[in-house]
Amino acid sequence: MKVLAVDIGGTHISCGAVEDHTLLESVSIEADSRNRLADLLPALEQTLHAIAERHPGAYAGVGFGFCGLVNPHAGRVLAANGKFPDATAIDLPGWARAAFNLPLALENDTRMALLGEHHAGSAQGSDVVMMTLGTGIGTAVISEGRLLRGKHFQAGCLGGHFTVALEGRLCSCGADGCFEAEASTYALQDVSRNWPGFQSSALAQEERLDLKALFHWADRGDHVAKEIRDRCIAIWSACALSLVHAYDPDLVVVGGGVMKSSYPILEALRQHVEAKAWTPWGKVEFRTAALGSDAALLGAWPLIAQQNEIQLR
Amino acid sequence: MKVLAVDIGGTHISCGAVEDHTLLESVSIEADSRNRLADLLPALEQTLHAIAERHPGAYAGVGFGFCGLVNPHAGRVLAANGKFPDATAIDLPGWARAAFNLPLALENDTRMALLGEHHAGSAQGSDVVMMTLGTGIGTAVISEGRLLRGKHFQAGCLGGHFTVALEGRLCSCGADGCFEAEASTYALQDVSRNWPGFQSSALAQEERLDLKALFHWADRGDHVAKEIRDRCIAIWSACALSLVHAYDPDLVVVGGGVMKSSYPILEALRQHVEAKAWTPWGKVEFRTAALGSDAALLGAWPLIAQQNEIQLR
Repeated sequence: MKVLAVDIGGTHISCGAVEDHTLLESVSIEADSRNRLADLLPALEQTLHAIAERHPGAYAGVGFGFCGLVNPHAGRVLAANGKFPDATAIDLPGWARAAFNLPLALENDTRMALLGEHHAGSAQGSDVVMMTLGTGIGTAVISEGRLLRGKHFQAGCLGGHFTVALEGRLCSCGADGCFEAEASTYALQDVSRNWPGFQSSALAQEERLDLKALFHWADRGDHVAKEIRDRCIAIWSACALSLVHAYDPDLVVVGGGVMKSSYPILEALRQHVEAKAWTPWGKVEFRTAALGSDAALLGAWPLIAQQNEIQLR
Repeated sequence: MKVLAVDIGGTHISCGAVEDHTLLESVSIEADSRNRLADLLPALEQTLHAIAERHPGAYAGVGFGFCGLVNPHAGRVLAANGKFPDATAIDLPGWARAAFNLPLALENDTRMALLGEHHAGSAQGSDVVMMTLGTGIGTAVISEGRLLRGKHFQAGCLGGHFTVALEGRLCSCGADGCFEAEASTYALQDVSRNWPGFQSSALAQEERLDLKALFHWADRGDHVAKEIRDRCIAIWSACALSLVHAYDPDLVVVGGGVMKSSYPILEALRQHVEAKAWTPWGKVEFRTAALGSDAALLGAWPLIAQQNEIQLR
């Protein structure tokens, strides 16, 4: 048994086929989240059919990850913070039935990445928190062996949106001073421009100022880049500590492209939590996510298995 | 069927007998948390025996709330942050068996208060967060119909210990800038002394500067008291918002003596969350805790029922 997998992000969409721990194939499509999701569905359908033809056999369903709040029971997107403005109106299970004659399981993208890491990567265990550092800060939680969803399916997803600065920057979510509004790619442009000395920093020359560029220039000794990088590390450390206090995991898995930089981000977070968190039972373990950008696709397998309450193996 | 109930706080201990929604009787004993808990147990035993004699009948167990982290499965206190230094060494179930020939169910005091409010007060529903504003900020969570405990029994309890100020005050838990370290009775003395203009404020004349005194003087127009009160409200509002983002409740129940003050604390928290939280499903309801300092004692009933997996009625 195999499953089809889709991961809808803000800048690209990944499609794939998964069998247990193995991503048989994946295809990435560029996508602009200002466009309508409905207009992308025909290309998605075509791509998934082509993948399934190259990997023939029985398919159990389509696991569908989306970069926003979703109702997994109803298979509907609830809110996407401006991304893919028509997403909440689309009947995704109906689309999957018509296109593939398969059931569809919908989940938030970070939750799907956590399911993937839990099944086939770094996130083994009954109580795990995942944080993904990137455009924003995505989080997801497995608590006492269960994916934490909450009454309106947003528990565990909004760990990047606890308040860390009372008079902090306005966040895309509408609140002030969220972790994500203070330290993420989308905040970086604005944080940097207002940093003392920015104009004389190499950062000012960057056409696309992202975390990769920040860590690159900090490594090379740029003072402003080092200061901003250190503040990002401090914010992420406080976020990790708050997540540990909120959800009581024994493992925190950290993902995102910035984890590939030479700076020891994971070790900084681990040290902060070890020094400062109230965990009388012992030490929280920190691991880098193992599956990179494939994590959410690989999460399609356990997601379909859970939804269908079947054993796929 | 009745249950015996104990609530161990930092400044006093309450004992009682409970039958379903009714607190049959309660007795409060002064206690100094710098002392040994073992030295208090004989007085507790005597008080509970006297209460049981005045309310004769069958008793199903002893529900025991403690102001710290506990392991409810083992019936052991895990950590108390310096309160009752011998607490972690005491075999409380053994004590209850010897003293009353009854099983004992142990829980964190705020969790027990939430159970009480859930069973007999304001906290009805499947997804509820409780916050108690007082010496510290106590929190507890019911998520998807279950008391959230976590791997090491500290999930939901430490909502007062998310980081709200990166370079904030050192908290009793060891972290910096926790909600509790910025706005609670135990922080107030220090926050106030360092506030500009403190010496000319009525607060400087208070022998025991607590939240009640702060709200009293702010009501009377003392400028420093108003500024500090407003900052407390802002911190608690950010705490409520972070808890909503963390646990996805549709109801937040707020307790603590300060809720009796004339200032509309509940309304301030509600307004902040309504204006700023990302809850596309609708509006979070806010209610004042209904049972006051009896909440934890009344929680003994559902706690014993859960532990014994019996229907007490």
